[in-house]
Amino acid sequence: MEREFYTLAWIEEEADPRTGRKGFLSLLDQTLLPESEQYLKVMDVPSLISAIQRLSVRGAPALGCAGALGLAAAACRYEAGEYREFMRWLETRGREVAAARPTAVNLGWAVNRCMRSLRTMIEKGEENVVSLKNALVEEALAIQQEDKELCEKIGEHGKRLFEEKRTRVLTHCNAGALATGGQGTALAPVYMAHRQGLEPRVLADETRPLLQGARLTAWELLRAGIEVTVICDNMAARAMVEDMVDFVLVGADRIAANGDTANKIGTYGLAVLAAYHRLPFYVAAPYSTVDLELAAGGQIPIEERDPGEIRSGFGRLIAPEECPVYNPAFDVTPAELITGIITERGILRPPYSRSLRD
Amino acid sequence: MEREFYTLAWIEEEADPRTGRKGFLSLLDQTLLPESEQYLKVMDVPSLISAIQRLSVRGAPALGCAGALGLAAAACRYEAGEYREFMRWLETRGREVAAARPTAVNLGWAVNRCMRSLRTMIEKGEENVVSLKNALVEEALAIQQEDKELCEKIGEHGKRLFEEKRTRVLTHCNAGALATGGQGTALAPVYMAHRQGLEPRVLADETRPLLQGARLTAWELLRAGIEVTVICDNMAARAMVEDMVDFVLVGADRIAANGDTANKIGTYGLAVLAAYHRLPFYVAAPYSTVDLELAAGGQIPIEERDPGEIRSGFGRLIAPEECPVYNPAFDVTPAELITGIITERGILRPPYSRSLRD
Repeated sequence: MEREFYTLAWIEEEADPRTGRKGFLSLLDQTLLPESEQYLKVMDVPSLISAIQRLSVRGAPALGCAGALGLAAAACRYEAGEYREFMRWLETRGREVAAARPTAVNLGWAVNRCMRSLRTMIEKGEENVVSLKNALVEEALAIQQEDKELCEKIGEHGKRLFEEKRTRVLTHCNAGALATGGQGTALAPVYMAHRQGLEPRVLADETRPLLQGARLTAWELLRAGIEVTVICDNMAARAMVEDMVDFVLVGADRIAANGDTANKIGTYGLAVLAAYHRLPFYVAAPYSTVDLELAAGGQIPIEERDPGEIRSGFGRLIAPEECPVYNPAFDVTPAELITGIITERGILRPPYSRSLRD
Repeated sequence: MEREFYTLAWIEEEADPRTGRKGFLSLLDQTLLPESEQYLKVMDVPSLISAIQRLSVRGAPALGCAGALGLAAAACRYEAGEYREFMRWLETRGREVAAARPTAVNLGWAVNRCMRSLRTMIEKGEENVVSLKNALVEEALAIQQEDKELCEKIGEHGKRLFEEKRTRVLTHCNAGALATGGQGTALAPVYMAHRQGLEPRVLADETRPLLQGARLTAWELLRAGIEVTVICDNMAARAMVEDMVDFVLVGADRIAANGDTANKIGTYGLAVLAAYHRLPFYVAAPYSTVDLELAAGGQIPIEERDPGEIRSGFGRLIAPEECPVYNPAFDVTPAELITGIITERGILRPPYSRSLRD
């Protein structure tokens, strides 16, 4: 797959021997797609948090990469006296980054992983702030590299679902290259099948309110030369009954121990529709999305977002300004509606309480 | 209910004894809501057809009223020699109006009813064009008046569903005052319950692509002081599972003899979701929406509309310009998912093949 764009990248700058390694996080500003392709330069925690909250970067795996790389970029610039002060600063900033969006588990996971690796170094006697900064950058880059490899593996496992030529898959939101450090989760098998000449076809829910399907999924698939058709979310049922869909494939923001899955609002309804039309419903996500400490989906915190996203999301007022709005960002699909969960370890099948733990 | 707006109205002008009665159709331009309240003056068939196709007026019953009143306005201005020429002109124009939108049965029904009434006069010996024009205006006004009364009756029958205080109903698209010559079909029982102090609460699907729910339903309910909350279409399933909905109530564009119902795209998916959550699903429509000549919903023609409605419907490009789009305007809800059909004759129950015919 030829790609002229990247979702996020670490841009190395010239190191200063006194303060250590230096660089910044370059982020494709996804709020401007598909009209304009612009990159944000992130060098401090407030601009990282703002980029995350404005959804310039989104998608659970990409949030993990961006959180770690952005924190590393900020740390490179922090002029610390000694390691204890540096770690205090980093712990505080890390907590702020992890809290920027409550539902995605990867953000906290990536930040914690970085913190843990530095704490381990300190336990082993490291007291040099320059070394700690360098290690932080390396850990963040490792998270990104591993994410890329996870996407590859998810693609390998999920590709089995595309063995017939011109398999038609319905997807929701964007779980593609724009949502990860690699080629995506739900879209990874699509890219893989495409590279093998299997001509997969994608029906993309536009995904209100922020239209990640229409703006992002359609954009990245067209770039890759993959056939994609956009529908409004409320057309999925008709597409199913009109025999335009072989199965549904979506990403995940958090998966509970029993397989209940939080993902972009609308996913749950799609799973109900798939079950009614006897179509398989698959979730694709790295194993790090699984939160074994949550017994079931009811415990997953669901972020409610700004009513303005619905009322004036298209640059024009589409509902009366004073009209109340309900705007949950995610919903929870119960495990019993999920045919399989594609992770880097294979396609897990029910009962998930067992297969997720094994 | 106090109303400062009207959906459509016949505005009488000074008659000319030589050419007969004269007036025009005044239409609230619904494409500009909720931002601006402007009325269109319709005096000829091309501007009537254009207003219908641009959806300045929409909703099956309102289309019937607008078709008849607009045709009458055009006829008033047509300078005919004698009655045969006038009728030839009218038959041609009537066919054009009836064909402006293929799915709504009311448009053709209203035009045909006007034509039939003039043909009956001619069979009885009437040859005066002025008398025929006057009769055409009267017939069109009668259609509007009857529509208003039908809405009242639908409201009376449907009100039974709102007997508990603060009943919460989920609706899709706009089947309210803006869709009829009266207070609406699906919203008529809501208005009726509101007037009786029962404080009904409405959850309004925004209804992509043209957002009739967010733009129109929210607007007219707020005007009437009725509690309404807008959601994106893909949030309906979450609202149901979060116990925010007592039942679903929608309008209809065409009902087949077996009860299968064509309505705004997204209705079918909503019916599947309601069934899954064991919530009642009601359709409200005047009996004229029933087309006994269609045995089942599969025979209802489904209009596909311009991809631009999805890609750039709201002043901003939301999908890549070259991206294919699937944009059916309606879908068909099978009778087995419908709990009851509220008409002016009462609430019909399954099996509809019997109750619709009786």
